Amino acid sequence: MKLYEFERAPNPRRVRFFIAEKGIDLASIERIQIDIGGGENRAAEFRQMNPMGTVPVLELDDGTALSETMAICRYFEGNHPEPALLGQSVIEQATIEMWNRRMEFNLLLPVAMAFRHTTGHFSDRENVFPDYGSDCGQSAQRMFDFLNDHLADNDYIAGRQFSVADITAVVSIDFARVIKMRLDPDKHARLIDWHERISARPAASV
Amino acid sequence: MKLYEFERAPNPRRVRFFIAEKGIDLASIERIQIDIGGGENRAAEFRQMNPMGTVPVLELDDGTALSETMAICRYFEGNHPEPALLGQSVIEQATIEMWNRRMEFNLLLPVAMAFRHTTGHFSDRENVFPDYGSDCGQSAQRMFDFLNDHLADNDYIAGRQFSVADITAVVSIDFARVIKMRLDPDKHARLIDWHERISARPAASV
Repeated sequence: MKLYEFERAPNPRRVRFFIAEKGIDLASIERIQIDIGGGENRAAEFRQMNPMGTVPVLELDDGTALSETMAICRYFEGNHPEPALLGQSVIEQATIEMWNRRMEFNLLLPVAMAFRHTTGHFSDRENVFPDYGSDCGQSAQRMFDFLNDHLADNDYIAGRQFSVADITAVVSIDFARVIKMRLDPDKHARLIDWHERISARPAASV
Repeated sequence: MKLYEFERAPNPRRVRFFIAEKGIDLASIERIQIDIGGGENRAAEFRQMNPMGTVPVLELDDGTALSETMAICRYFEGNHPEPALLGQSVIEQATIEMWNRRMEFNLLLPVAMAFRHTTGHFSDRENVFPDYGSDCGQSAQRMFDFLNDHLADNDYIAGRQFSVADITAVVSIDFARVIKMRLDPDKHARLIDWHERISARPAASV
């Protein structure tokens, strides 16, 4: 089994975090770094594995290439059900899916758009719209405020239990530092407390 | 059970399509139209159910409110496993998740961004960046071309079986007509053939 990734990018970190929470030894998976900055993910060889040109990609021993972060997570959840990170009962699964998607569409996506469109990091390969990027940064800021309120009644993003939604959220917040977005101790005390708890988990550092 | 929706919007259609494919009688679910144009989804009452302000929302009989299209679909998949639309084996589930996400992030999202940013339909509530919208429209066009090639070797988006990925894709392509994006008979013969097959399913019209 091989994991094609780019260590500093947020989506590969989500997958590593997920795998480590499952208690799977990451050293048992061969990890291959793809040079995103150099465009290796857009080369024909990589696109044969993932025509969308994104990392991470998990290559199974039979050659099957799985891409999309949550598809890879679902593969590990299916083969290593404990501890459940996508929920057990039907209502738990639906609730975690809801919160994980809120974190993806209302936090990670705006942070990523703010990064791409304000820094122009990928301007060699995509058109860049700085005003749109700034607007996305403001959306992400509003989500920080929302989450701080949300955590008044919830220990974790999806409620009472740690789940993939916490992984997506913490990775998004950490990645936002690249565009100088930081949690504000005056406004985000609860979010900072949650962030410290999640960051203290051993899997947060892999 | 109540479904809060806006009939013409793409995400509510994905949920109706999914429910009907399960053989569930849509008439057994009370459907409540939310006036998106008039901003009813942003009012305090609606935000109590879904703070993100999006439709669809499924309200269960105990008052639990589930939002996010795929969370609602997962709820129905869990309670009505047949026919499976999210896959059965672990590898099927991961493969369908991968393809559904490709349809969401590389097709539905750019179509939706092109709609919002080129038409200014929601300019009373969000900043609008027309050049970004045009760029998203071009991304969606490239996905039409990609899917036409992909269908040379696959009967359905995720391979050999109909799945939620076909629902997401067909709903996205139909919604793209609002911004005058249409399949091109000279370039998209296979995609048009697939589109006709999917559109002929009774659930496509609910």
